[in-house]
Parts: sequence; structure tokens; C-alpha cells
Amino acid sequence: MSYDFLSHILSLVRSRQPLVHQITNYVTVTDCANASLAIGASPVMAHAPQEVEDMVALAQALLLNIGTPDEDSIKAMLMAGMAANAKNIPVILDPVGAGATPYRTKSSERLLSELRISIIRGNQSEIRALLGLSGETRGVDSVTAEADFSAMALEAARKFNCVVAATGKIDYVSDGKKCLAIYNQHPLLQKVTGTGCMCSALVACCVAAQPTEPLEAAATAVAISGLAGEIAAAKITPSLGSGSFHVELINAFAEISPETLQKNARIKYV
Amino acid sequence: MSYDFLSHILSLVRSRQPLVHQITNYVTVTDCANASLAIGASPVMAHAPQEVEDMVALAQALLLNIGTPDEDSIKAMLMAGMAANAKNIPVILDPVGAGATPYRTKSSERLLSELRISIIRGNQSEIRALLGLSGETRGVDSVTAEADFSAMALEAARKFNCVVAATGKIDYVSDGKKCLAIYNQHPLLQKVTGTGCMCSALVACCVAAQPTEPLEAAATAVAISGLAGEIAAAKITPSLGSGSFHVELINAFAEISPETLQKNARIKYV
Amino acid sequence: MSYDFLSHILSLVRSRQPLVHQITNYVTVTDCANASLAIGASPVMAHAPQEVEDMVALAQALLLNIGTPDEDSIKAMLMAGMAANAKNIPVILDPVGAGATPYRTKSSERLLSELRISIIRGNQSEIRALLGLSGETRGVDSVTAEADFSAMALEAARKFNCVVAATGKIDYVSDGKKCLAIYNQHPLLQKVTGTGCMCSALVACCVAAQPTEPLEAAATAVAISGLAGEIAAAKITPSLGSGSFHVELINAFAEISPETLQKNARIKYV
Repeated sequence: MSYDFLSHILSLVRSRQPLVHQITNYVTVTDCANASLAIGASPVMAHAPQEVEDMVALAQALLLNIGTPDEDSIKAMLMAGMAANAKNIPVILDPVGAGATPYRTKSSERLLSELRISIIRGNQSEIRALLGLSGETRGVDSVTAEADFSAMALEAARKFNCVVAATGKIDYVSDGKKCLAIYNQHPLLQKVTGTGCMCSALVACCVAAQPTEPLEAAATAVAISGLAGEIAAAKITPSLGSGSFHVELINAFAEISPETLQKNARIKYV
Repeated sequence: MSYDFLSHILSLVRSRQPLVHQITNYVTVTDCANASLAIGASPVMAHAPQEVEDMVALAQALLLNIGTPDEDSIKAMLMAGMAANAKNIPVILDPVGAGATPYRTKSSERLLSELRISIIRGNQSEIRALLGLSGETRGVDSVTAEADFSAMALEAARKFNCVVAATGKIDYVSDGKKCLAIYNQHPLLQKVTGTGCMCSALVACCVAAQPTEPLEAAATAVAISGLAGEIAAAKITPSLGSGSFHVELINAFAEISPETLQKNARIKYV
Repeated sequence: MSYDFLSHILSLVRSRQPLVHQITNYVTVTDCANASLAIGASPVMAHAPQEVEDMVALAQALLLNIGTPDEDSIKAMLMAGMAANAKNIPVILDPVGAGATPYRTKSSERLLSELRISIIRGNQSEIRALLGLSGETRGVDSVTAEADFSAMALEAARKFNCVVAATGKIDYVSDGKKCLAIYNQHPLLQKVTGTGCMCSALVACCVAAQPTEPLEAAATAVAISGLAGEIAAAKITPSLGSGSFHVELINAFAEISPETLQKNARIKYV
């Protein structure tokens, strides 16, 4: 099987510069905007009921991230999501902290039941929580033991009838039929806030550029995230900390060429 | 004609350390605060109706930025703006995304009609939208073709009876009589979120330090922004990306001396 | 007397990785999250009334920061604070801008009267305002003259029956009986937004790891903040600005070892 989609989809992001409407949390929103710009897309944040329908109509994808949820933001997500669905604009959900509190789990379930979601990108604890399985989400960080996560990604993709990117030590991306495993990663990605949120933003940018291949778009974004973590970690060795890693991560998003991605992504169908 | 105001106004910001009250968006607010601190001012963010009038009374300028507008934030802007008007504290408007959605255009118009605005700082698409001209704002980024933007800045300044800083490949700043063109710029400024918002914050800092010269204060801030972009771009050549550019941009705001600004600003009356 | 608690408490943060629930402002929230991660804790931000009680029940400390207060956030703080009190989870208050506007002073007083606060961390102007003393808070920055601040910290600790960390040129931390003075500091800490907020986040992380020693935990966090400022300033000498200082500050939080802290903290009982 071919993995040529990696360089192809990144090239499309760079050439098409898609507009990505993001309704997200106030902790990592700046990083999501800068990561989107760095890989070549154009982010726009808007949440008022007076404008979300107009804004999403201009966009090529809509990202919904519940990192700091409340009733107003969930309503804005539903309104924007319905407008996106009506226009066949792909909707990406990041169910941040699902499983940590009932409110986050229920809000995720509500978005999944009332909207047609194209791609879910969450850590493996969050995906587990959406499946109603036991396990633990600690705050917004994943602590579930590594297990048969490829089966879990497949199951979630079937249950929610969408592509699921379940990230962890190994990342799994499935559309319910096929499953890709991605082995790029670096532990420092856990030491900077927003690396999961940025990964979801990149997923939205990639599917915005190539809406007909959501599985491949999600896998491309996940591979970019992991590889950028590796590149950034190499840059700061041996003596710098997470502040410099954060800067180098954005640098890496901007600097990764389609060829570098194709050459260094460690990906396979499992 | 003399352009000595550049070094003079930057010196005043450094010596007077004006307090600048900012009601702004949650995407770039941290960068606006850090840019304000870097050039020597003191930023304060506050939006609650219980305190905006008290806070603005302590400040030497009020910045209103509609980057993520909603009814609460527009109401806070109106309340703070009226208090500022009553005390002759200059009010600066950044109409982020005017033209992209009707809500942003109407919110900008509302602020312009109900408040006495001293300076509008927007990209050229946004200024075009405020004038009711055709053209396209794509998300929050400017895509209008470069045209006779100096005439547009003049026209907007006359229509809104204030100073207008219309930024783009060439920046134009007009008070309706005179027009300054500023040729400092770097394309990397488009690859980091918040560079336009930071420019507006610097405009507010400069007019806070020198309220009697709003045209010159706006031009000084625009020149600092463009020159800082050039300095930051030179620092990261040849191999770093937008993460490092972002850091070097803040460094440049902090490090530009009045003499460096005076020497390297490319500015003329047109 | 021994100051061995410094290395001990930092070691506990690194080994226990406490979860710290933060209800804070939208200006410095990303920095608070990254500072918390850098010293080894796990931050989580949540403010909706539907989840704050659930979230705080998972946490080892609750941080309340009124940097951008409004009625919704104050209500969320009261609700989360009551849940924390019921479970004996320590609550840390950062009364940002108390004294600048009546609303901030009253909001701080309300939190102090309705909740059992374990530690207050504020600059010396803010602590002075809480005591109802005259003096000036300018925006959110401290401008009060250095005076008998150790006596003020002692008095505030007695009045509010908690630990008070009053930071300034010299930092004082008191539990109403003892008072520690900490002499690490760097003026560049005033040129980056959020350094006070990050200090409060570190206080929350340290007391989360060692809840039985709030005086020592607060002093450890304050010493880490000051020492990190010194380390960061040394890294950027002679030619970089506040953008690089900001990055190096986060690096320093991540890189300071318990031994480095113990060796370089300048602390004594006064």
C-alpha cells in the first residue's frame, strides 16, 4: 500500500491555504492559530451566535474543541456545526477531557449526536470515555495504559461513523475499515500545553485542504505533529527546556516540507 | 518635512510608561500585553461592566479590538468608550474582520457611531469594508489587491473624522489632510497570529504617550511594527521558522531604540 | 533554622505530579499552564458551573486568579472554592489588581470572606489594598514604595488567617507567626506579562504536592520564580529582549533541579 498521501496532502495545505473556523478553548487558542498558520492554512476564531453561521460558510473546515467548555460555547458549536453540515463542510471534534467530568463526556456526546462529525481527534483516554469504557482521564491528560488501541480506534470509528484519530505513545487513525498506526512521537509533547489541541487544528487544516480523504488527512496531520515533536526535541538537545521546545515545535510545523514528511513519517496500516 | 516625531514619540512611551486599557480578543491578548510591555507601556485588560469605567479612568488610552466579538464584549467596549470620551482619553479601534461577516462590520459601525474614535488601525480590506466598498475580507486576513490605498486612507479619515492607519504591503496613515506612507514590512508578519493586533496595541501605547499628535503617534507605531518585522526576520535567517520569528518580534519591540527607529524607518508624506 | 524544604518540596512536585485546577484570566492562562507543566505538575482549566465541582474533586489544589474578573468567573470561583473547602483541597488566591478598581478589591474580599483560602499570592500593592491601607495599584502592576513589607505580610496573614506571599523587590512569605524573605529576583520579570500569575500557579503546584506545609510551599514557589528570572536573564545577556526572556523563563522552570534551587535560593527567616 502507498503512503504517498502524506506529501500530497501537506502540499495541498500549502497551496490551497484553506480557511479553518475554530471554536476552541482559551488556553491553547493562540497556539492553535499559530500552528495552523505555520503549516500554511488560515485560521479564524469566532463564537458569537450573530456570526458563526456566516463565518463557517466562508471556511473549508470547522474545528470544535471543548477544552474550556460552557453552555455558550457548546451552543455556538452546535449552531456552527449545523451550518457546516448543511454545506458539507467537514467538522472536526476534539473532546478535550471527555471522561474527566460528566459535563465534558455529555457535551461530547451531544455534539456527536446532533452533528455529523467527520473526524474525532482525541487522546486514547478520551476516545475510551466516548466508547463508555472504563479507564481514567486525569484532568485533560491521558493516563490509560497502552493496550489494544488500534481495535479501540476501529470500534470508535464504527460507532460514531467517522474517522477517529486516537493519539498516544502510538497514534491510531481509523475510518472503521482501515487503521493506520503512526510511530512518530516525543515525550516532551506532554510537557507543553496545547500539543493535542494543535494536532486537532492540523487535522482540520489537512481535511480542509483534502476533504475527500478524511482518513488520510487525519493521518497526515498526526504524522506532522509527531515528526515536528521529534524535530523540535532534536533542536533543543541537550540543554534547553520546554519553553524552547514550544518555539521549535512551531518552527517545525512551518519548516517541514512534503518531502521531509514523506521520508521521516513512520506509518503503516495495521 | 520632518520625521523627527518617530524617535520623539518612542522616547515618550519609554519615559511616560502610559497605562493602556485594552478590551480585546482571546486569541492575541497575551501578545498584545507583551508587545505593550516591550515598547515600554503598561497594559491592563478588563471587561466587566462593574469595572471598565473605573479602569479606563486610570488609563492614558483605550484600545478596542473586535477579534472575537460578542454582545458582552461590544457592550463593555461601548461602556468603556463612553467613559473614555467623557475624559478625553483617546480611543483606538481595531475592526478585526470587518467585511468578513456582517456582524463584524455592523459592530465596527456601531462603535464608530456611538463613540468618538481617535484612531482606526485595520488592514486595507477592513478599512475598505468600513467605507462600504466592495472587496473581500477572507477570515481576518486581508486579500484585497494593492490599489490606491493612500486615497482610501484619506477618504476613511475624512468619513470617520479620525486618524486611519490602513496597513498592508505599504502602510498608509492619514488624518484626512495629510497621508504618510510607511515602507517597512516583512511577509513573515502574516505567518504569526496577532501581528496586526499588536500593531494596534502599539498605536494605543504611542497615542497614550503623545495624545496631541495622533497622526504621528499612529505612524510611529506602524513604523515600529514593520521595522521590528524586518529585524526579527533578519535574526532568524536562514533556517528558523515562525516560532522563532514570533520571539524575535517581541525582542525587537523591546530592543528598538529611538535612534534605530529614526534611522531605519522608511516613511514619507505622500 | 533549616531551609531544606526547598529541594524537598520541588522534588515532591516532580514525583507526585499533582493536578491543579485553575480558574484564571485569559491573558496569562497559557503561561500558567506551561509554567505548571514545566515544574512537573498537571494543570487543568475549567470554569463552567456544570463541571467545576467535579473537576476540583480530582485536583490536589485550586487556584483562583482574578486577572480578568467578571460575574460568571467570580461565581465559578465561589462554587469551585466551596467544593474544595468541603474536601480540604487547598485554595490559592491571586487578587490581581486589587486596589486598582473597587470591583477587584471587593471581589477579592468576597472570595476571602466566603471561602477558606490557604494562600494569598499578590504583589505588595495588592496585599496593601486587601488590608485597606492607602497606596496605589496602577493597573495590575505594583508601584508602592518598598517599605516594611515583612510586617505587612505578617499582618495580612493574621488578618486573613492564611499564608500570604507578598512579592516585590524582596518577597515576603508569612503564616502570621514566621516570615521568610526571599531575595531572588530580576527586573525583567516586570517586562513580561504573567510572571506574577505564573508565580501563583507555582504556589498552587507546590502546595498541591505538600499540603501540610503551606508556608514552605509558598516560599519554595516564590524562590523558584525569582531564581528562574535570574537564570533566564543570564541566558539572554547581553543582547536579547523580553521575547527570549519569556522562553528562557519557561526553560528555567523545567530545568531547575532541587539541588540548584537549594543552592541558589537566597532565603532567610526575618
